[in-house]
Amino acid sequence: MPVNANAAIEITGFKWVPDFARGQVRDLRPRWALKETGLDYAERLLDATANRPADYYEEQPWGQVPVMHEGDLTIFESGAILLHIAEKHDRLLPADMQSRNRAISWLFAALNSIEPLMMQLATIDIFAKDEPWAKLRRPGLMDFIGQRLDRLSARLGDKDYLDGEFTVGDIGMATVLRIAENTNIVTSRKNLAAYVRRCEARPAFQRALATQKETYAAHEPQTVV
Amino acid sequence: MPVNANAAIEITGFKWVPDFARGQVRDLRPRWALKETGLDYAERLLDATANRPADYYEEQPWGQVPVMHEGDLTIFESGAILLHIAEKHDRLLPADMQSRNRAISWLFAALNSIEPLMMQLATIDIFAKDEPWAKLRRPGLMDFIGQRLDRLSARLGDKDYLDGEFTVGDIGMATVLRIAENTNIVTSRKNLAAYVRRCEARPAFQRALATQKETYAAHEPQTVV
Repeated sequence: MPVNANAAIEITGFKWVPDFARGQVRDLRPRWALKETGLDYAERLLDATANRPADYYEEQPWGQVPVMHEGDLTIFESGAILLHIAEKHDRLLPADMQSRNRAISWLFAALNSIEPLMMQLATIDIFAKDEPWAKLRRPGLMDFIGQRLDRLSARLGDKDYLDGEFTVGDIGMATVLRIAENTNIVTSRKNLAAYVRRCEARPAFQRALATQKETYAAHEPQTVV
Repeated sequence: MPVNANAAIEITGFKWVPDFARGQVRDLRPRWALKETGLDYAERLLDATANRPADYYEEQPWGQVPVMHEGDLTIFESGAILLHIAEKHDRLLPADMQSRNRAISWLFAALNSIEPLMMQLATIDIFAKDEPWAKLRRPGLMDFIGQRLDRLSARLGDKDYLDGEFTVGDIGMATVLRIAENTNIVTSRKNLAAYVRRCEARPAFQRALATQKETYAAHEPQTVV
């Protein structure tokens, strides 16, 4: 079992989230990375629908999940957590300096050059979908995202993963590309679509996703009759 | 001189950019980090106003600057470059594991939780300023940024830097906060305003900024009479 209340590593997540957020909450990233490396972890679950406990902001400045604890260490931001986990196993971060730096470059590329665009799209399509600015902004944003994904598609080419072998950069990029799963902006680019499917097919991803879903199912709000 | 054509490290930048971009182009980040660590670097300058050479996309997937070369290593994304430079000197990345992980957490926080918001604001205020969606979107975005900066302000408190001592996380955060320099969204929060001024007052920042400006001045386009 990846989730083990006595594990040395603890990850924060949510007890339950609405359908649109399932499979998207960022604790999926460390769950996946930990499963790739075979490390168990404990869950500490927060109520997504309530205010965070005031002292949680001392762990995570924005009140978000995930936070990772390991002994005395507290790490926040999914990118920093992924990098810390990746340092534990050369499956995620190769020892060779060039490969290591390319993997880290792709991790930052996912979180700084792709995710910001995907989050703008999610804001438009989910949180602001009835607002006039969202309708006006969407076509231009889609064009911009499309151009960037064309570049990503060209760089990926016919490789299985961004740098050939799977690395922590792919955990970053695949989870970021999945944000647009309700559009065809990724799936319309055949090699990117196959890349996301390939990442999602990894047993560690499947297990991480199932574990997150099981957590939400166990905390399903009771229907008030 | 920080810029030295024979240095082991090479950074890409632009020959010249218009006024609105001066002091904002991301090669400022490695220039600053390298100056903090006392390392010289060579410049490779691209024409910002022309298409990138096709093979530059092999170095940087989006055609952006900076790219860093060091011997056989090629590193892209300013966050990955900052992290690589920071690994060279405990002034930027403390050896103590908790301090190290906090610095890396703040670096990702700057690039994944603050910069995306600042770039949306820059898009609205500079590139899309006459578009109806930009006018409609701006108030809500400013509210959202303000709430996040309130959290950042609370976490900074009365410390000089995010984690007390200066780290690579501050290079990330200060350069990201500076993106909003034409608004009062940072400066209206007194401790954040003082924090940015404190970072900007560092001799290494001053030298990096001056070097970037000198490069642009040396390549000023000739006025056609």
